[in-house]
Amino acid sequence: MAEKFGLFSQHWSPKIVARMNDYEFKLVKIQGDFVWHKHDDTDEVFIVLEGQMHIDFRDGPVHLKAGELFVVPKNLEHKPYAEQECRIMLVEPTGVVNTADVGGELTAKVDYV
Amino acid sequence: MAEKFGLFSQHWSPKIVARMNDYEFKLVKIQGDFVWHKHDDTDEVFIVLEGQMHIDFRDGPVHLKAGELFVVPKNLEHKPYAEQECRIMLVEPTGVVNTADVGGELTAKVDYV
Repeated sequence: MAEKFGLFSQHWSPKIVARMNDYEFKLVKIQGDFVWHKHDDTDEVFIVLEGQMHIDFRDGPVHLKAGELFVVPKNLEHKPYAEQECRIMLVEPTGVVNTADVGGELTAKVDYV
Repeated sequence: MAEKFGLFSQHWSPKIVARMNDYEFKLVKIQGDFVWHKHDDTDEVFIVLEGQMHIDFRDGPVHLKAGELFVVPKNLEHKPYAEQECRIMLVEPTGVVNTADVGGELTAKVDYV
């Protein structure tokens, strides 16, 4: 996965590295603030590979560091952010849009890397 | 995940650490040979967290080390093995039996850790 991370630099732009059934494994470099959003139809798994990140929920933040895995339940508003660049893997069904129904400039077209 | 690995020692005995929709994330310590088997209905994801492992297929082996992810396609016979203890994470649908239809003494009852 380290090798794949070397192939792109854009933040908040998930890159697919594997597909299992109708799910995708995506690598993402994140830094700064993402947008508040929720996924109506699916849980979303965050696995922190390098660095530290945080996920704000309406009732408080969760702090995650390398080696930690967190499941954001479906339908729950959340806002990921990271002070320094952080490398994570997302696991979610094929076709999930990163900004869900919120859209905006951080909405990413997802490709393989 | 390192903390969770400290809570069990048995080899080839997957421990659930998270559930996403109808999928499970399981930590496994492996060493020695597993049995040849295949999963008729699902792909299976191996993520190597520490150490090295191998997966034999009928047409040759795949060698994996920490930081690598591999998808075993459904219906494909495979036999995982590791010379030294290796720590991995499996991702697959809820209810998948580790030895599939082959059974035997390595068949594990899967619990949360």
